[in-house]
Amino acid sequence: MPEDETLTVGNLGESGLLARILPRLRGAEPLLGPGDDAALISAPGGAFVFTVDTLVENQDFRLHWPSGFESSGYDVGWKSAAQNLSDVNAMGAYATAAVISLTLPHHTPVKWVEDLAEGFSAAVRELGAVHCAIAGGDLGRGTELSITAALTGAVVTGKVILRSGAKPGDIIAVSGVLGQAAAGLALLDSAVPVKDWSECMERLVYAQRRPQPPLLAGPAAAAAGATAMMDLSDGLLKDGRRLAIASAVRLEFERDALIKDAEKLESMAARLGKDPFEWVLGGGEDHGLLATFPPEAEIPSGFRPVGVVLRREAGDTHEAVTLDGEPPEVTSGYDHFEG
Amino acid sequence: MPEDETLTVGNLGESGLLARILPRLRGAEPLLGPGDDAALISAPGGAFVFTVDTLVENQDFRLHWPSGFESSGYDVGWKSAAQNLSDVNAMGAYATAAVISLTLPHHTPVKWVEDLAEGFSAAVRELGAVHCAIAGGDLGRGTELSITAALTGAVVTGKVILRSGAKPGDIIAVSGVLGQAAAGLALLDSAVPVKDWSECMERLVYAQRRPQPPLLAGPAAAAAGATAMMDLSDGLLKDGRRLAIASAVRLEFERDALIKDAEKLESMAARLGKDPFEWVLGGGEDHGLLATFPPEAEIPSGFRPVGVVLRREAGDTHEAVTLDGEPPEVTSGYDHFEG
Repeated sequence: MPEDETLTVGNLGESGLLARILPRLRGAEPLLGPGDDAALISAPGGAFVFTVDTLVENQDFRLHWPSGFESSGYDVGWKSAAQNLSDVNAMGAYATAAVISLTLPHHTPVKWVEDLAEGFSAAVRELGAVHCAIAGGDLGRGTELSITAALTGAVVTGKVILRSGAKPGDIIAVSGVLGQAAAGLALLDSAVPVKDWSECMERLVYAQRRPQPPLLAGPAAAAAGATAMMDLSDGLLKDGRRLAIASAVRLEFERDALIKDAEKLESMAARLGKDPFEWVLGGGEDHGLLATFPPEAEIPSGFRPVGVVLRREAGDTHEAVTLDGEPPEVTSGYDHFEG
Repeated sequence: MPEDETLTVGNLGESGLLARILPRLRGAEPLLGPGDDAALISAPGGAFVFTVDTLVENQDFRLHWPSGFESSGYDVGWKSAAQNLSDVNAMGAYATAAVISLTLPHHTPVKWVEDLAEGFSAAVRELGAVHCAIAGGDLGRGTELSITAALTGAVVTGKVILRSGAKPGDIIAVSGVLGQAAAGLALLDSAVPVKDWSECMERLVYAQRRPQPPLLAGPAAAAAGATAMMDLSDGLLKDGRRLAIASAVRLEFERDALIKDAEKLESMAARLGKDPFEWVLGGGEDHGLLATFPPEAEIPSGFRPVGVVLRREAGDTHEAVTLDGEPPEVTSGYDHFEG
């Protein structure tokens, strides 16, 4: 690795770069700072959650896919809303407001931008974020299309659910689909042309284009006493590992509990020569929830158990995440600065 | 203008594009939606203000200037914080939290990004935003450097100050400097090399690099009964025109009240062959405040009177903004999609 003077962001991974930036962000103390799905802010009227996320063309979305599919502004607007709403959901909160900042190249069709606004609004309404105002934003020119949304949220139960609260003996549960968005992404990226897509294939691509974060599940998990929770944006294993490390525990997933998720992807995986379990374990962007509940808790509807939380001692040779007791073979997951 | 199908954002101005987008943003009703410096959101604990702003390389800032000056990450971080803090200030509110989203090209030096974080934090501290947490954010890759900050703010006096409340007979007052950032910009853009800059020139460039929004002035104006207020980001005349139109009044500025601002810029203007009044009237990015007060109000310290609010009837042939009773000759101001 080069010396500090010549070090570029391409030389560091996302986490390495964050480790350089975060200590330099020094303002008033938030109740909860960086490192969870959203921050928690102290304000005169009570604490609120706060999150921001940017989608950049050709990094976080494509307009033109190898399969010939064309992403609409509606799709991109929907995705921007969905992933930010999911971050609020993962804290056990509900969204109160969104602001949007758009950077638009000169040649962007006005119709595409109108569609983006429609898609963002539709996600807010159709995903059930009924208290979320879309309060305006900022508009600017650039050479690269990007959309940033920032959302605030209110805490239902009086406390937010962090990644760090999982305890040995807790039940691991997930809400929402697993691997469907990844399967859809693989198809979009494939040589299978759009005109040959079956209804099942369309459905998987739809899961990628229009993620469906289960917005009732976050507050319901908080009310049911969830000990830890996070958004599934980068894949079950990668996100699970983050939760396990934040909580200093091991997450033991049961393959049997995930078989149904994989079965739904089997024909598609066969067609593309893939292992459906890779999508279930490693695929991101479904924006479901990963949560842990005390053994005595009643797991709320919409969640299904997928494993248990185990003790992890210092120097434990086990991985932070295991599958049927073994280190999982799939370790991939998304990193913005990899490669 | 082309038909809708082929219309691009380059064919529409900023306001034309906003007119297409805003009606399509439909969520829960904010207490105050787009069109002011920040939105006002209803939340369980009380209303809060919410704003977002993006700076894009070569649009909103340059790294390399014709004069040879190199902008640091610190400068860009400072500017991002300052302009967002100014939007909160202009509502009569104080900032409670910021989140930041960075889009970084692969080749961006890590040191530059560290400086950006330091500059953002320094602005929050040194401008006196003592309640503003910097709560984290998002990090992603792109081909173009950009920084988006979203800020929330709390309302001190129980009500926000809008652009639309100015009444005939009110005193117009400004807080902060006028034209200095524009003079600095002209110098950065000039052929006068950095090594030849005088101390006075350095000071003007500093005003451009590190805007100093007067953060005590916004809440003070609210407490003093300001009827309307806005951030001076695009120039006194252009911003004044927005306030005048929102309030359905005429703003009559007095040239004599602005002479001191112009005098400070005279030697610099002579050097560059410019009229200093162009900077005072048309120059943006100083991030002072433009406010109106009832004639009986005690104008708070930090503000100075610069004109009066006059009646404007429907069909009035006067401009929304006048200077000593005449339409001002300077009409320029910044539009993101112009040119």
